[in-house]
Amino acid sequence: MLAAQYVAGSGIEVATVPPEQPGPGEVRIEVAYVGICGTDLHILAGHMDERVADHGVIGHEVSGRVGALGEGATAWAVGDPVTVMPLRWCGSCPTCRAGHTHICDRLDFVGIDSPGGMQQLWNVPQELLVPLPPTLALRDAALVEPVAVAHHDVARSALSAGERALVVGGGPIGVLIAVVARGQGAQVLLAEPDPYRRSVVAGLGIEVLDPGAADVAATLDGWSEGAGAAVAFEVSGSQPGLDLAVSSLGARGRLVVVGIHAEPRQVDMKRVFWKELQFLGARVYERADFVAAVRLLDEGAIPVDALVSRVDALADAPAAFERLAEGGRVMKVLVDCRSGATS
Amino acid sequence: MLAAQYVAGSGIEVATVPPEQPGPGEVRIEVAYVGICGTDLHILAGHMDERVADHGVIGHEVSGRVGALGEGATAWAVGDPVTVMPLRWCGSCPTCRAGHTHICDRLDFVGIDSPGGMQQLWNVPQELLVPLPPTLALRDAALVEPVAVAHHDVARSALSAGERALVVGGGPIGVLIAVVARGQGAQVLLAEPDPYRRSVVAGLGIEVLDPGAADVAATLDGWSEGAGAAVAFEVSGSQPGLDLAVSSLGARGRLVVVGIHAEPRQVDMKRVFWKELQFLGARVYERADFVAAVRLLDEGAIPVDALVSRVDALADAPAAFERLAEGGRVMKVLVDCRSGATS
Repeated sequence: MLAAQYVAGSGIEVATVPPEQPGPGEVRIEVAYVGICGTDLHILAGHMDERVADHGVIGHEVSGRVGALGEGATAWAVGDPVTVMPLRWCGSCPTCRAGHTHICDRLDFVGIDSPGGMQQLWNVPQELLVPLPPTLALRDAALVEPVAVAHHDVARSALSAGERALVVGGGPIGVLIAVVARGQGAQVLLAEPDPYRRSVVAGLGIEVLDPGAADVAATLDGWSEGAGAAVAFEVSGSQPGLDLAVSSLGARGRLVVVGIHAEPRQVDMKRVFWKELQFLGARVYERADFVAAVRLLDEGAIPVDALVSRVDALADAPAAFERLAEGGRVMKVLVDCRSGATS
Repeated sequence: MLAAQYVAGSGIEVATVPPEQPGPGEVRIEVAYVGICGTDLHILAGHMDERVADHGVIGHEVSGRVGALGEGATAWAVGDPVTVMPLRWCGSCPTCRAGHTHICDRLDFVGIDSPGGMQQLWNVPQELLVPLPPTLALRDAALVEPVAVAHHDVARSALSAGERALVVGGGPIGVLIAVVARGQGAQVLLAEPDPYRRSVVAGLGIEVLDPGAADVAATLDGWSEGAGAAVAFEVSGSQPGLDLAVSSLGARGRLVVVGIHAEPRQVDMKRVFWKELQFLGARVYERADFVAAVRLLDEGAIPVDALVSRVDALADAPAAFERLAEGGRVMKVLVDCRSGATS
């Protein structure tokens, strides 16, 4: 079978490897689609070599069908459509004992810290599987994981219908947050410097803002009728994005910290005090977010066609990564791992 | 009567001024005690000249008795012991309309933005008064306002009994937060660099930490059994204090931002994301905090004797300010405004 491997210092290579039998408690998935995420690009750039094994298989946004059952994997049947919630926790650290297993102190993020799904056959502990309804296309189901991220972020904000929410950053996660927040009744404005991404967002009927425009403060003031945003989602991971998000909030406004800020950031803590702001870190998801994401996709609430820029065959995965890393007119790229898929 | 006035460029001066009659809806308070707060020292240093009138009377931590009633001030009787919640809001700005009147966009903080209580007779709108029980000494009641601050800060943290709370900063507000949090069942540790203040805190039976010690991280780890703090109160207003508070928190830990950070601060936003931390700005108080503060003082839950370093007569207010500004072995200083009070 084919498997896309991360080779340190080189990039993504597609190798032919012998399939392994699923072990006890494992399920073999016949992988259909795998999404490429921003984290995967960080892996490609060598930023995560401490966590990713050389020649390891990456990929954590996966849809497929159960192909075989290991001993004791009795919860599933061959042919079941499934996705994978790619988190394994220890259950014994202080964070797990406090109930926050999804951010376990020793979290194994499958596809980063252990082998992922960008291969034709993938053996996974059965408890990581999440069932898919037969009505949901497997291509669309490759978006369950990023939709679960967005759902978790919106849940952290405790958003109420009618509230104003600013989303800072219009990549796939930012757009999904905007869509989920709008679905919960929020008045959404999305800030994104890239004109192509703004056009995609505007095409979804979501109001957009160019953060480089001269009149940003006045625009925000007009949009919020002088009250400021109730919620801001910082998805850019940048200092200017963080500044915009913090400055946009009104009294008791909530900032959800979604983007990864590799360096310490300057923060106006006096404003946090003065307006009694709230910051909320939001990382990955909980099981409930995954279940909700499956439902949202099955209901057609997620504009998959607008978000999936292209689908490449597994054999072409190296080129797919390269094109995504180059940027430009691209949102989400999927890799088709089905046997016989061609570019 | 005597009144302590802020004279820009000079400092505090005590002047003899003619008393004014209380206007409609006002109550004349015969002021008993006024506490000097850190904000008053900022006024003294000229940092707040944009807000404080030249020759204005400052002071916002006040106890006294009702001395006379203006027209329509029917809610009170002469002789009633009272304190003052020194906030006036507009009722019409977006923040007020959202229910957060205590942080009104046009808040009048009485004693800063309008005349305060460091005078023998003080006319105040009757709705600002808060009743005191006859069992509470007026000296102790001068601490209602800072206790209300502490109560608000602890309320913002949503503290649960048994949780570990780190308080960063051992001035009067930090100590009061520690006392209120302990009263609600928290396991409290207070970090303070000044040995005198640490000794005061330790004397109250509260565990203390020298943030300049070599083994701070190990101490915090041992104290929290590896789990990190559930809550940290940042009361120092300093970069090192903020760093300590943020680094102390475990997964989903809450940072209450109490101290005023005059400059933007470096914040490890990746940690906010990674551990799903929460920041909560906490400013002044709501009416419920004032009522709770009166109750705590009346119950004897606040160690007033340990906190009040000295009481100076109103005529000596300039020296009282100077001594407090010098620092050293001092926590809270009160000014006795009663007629005939001498130093």
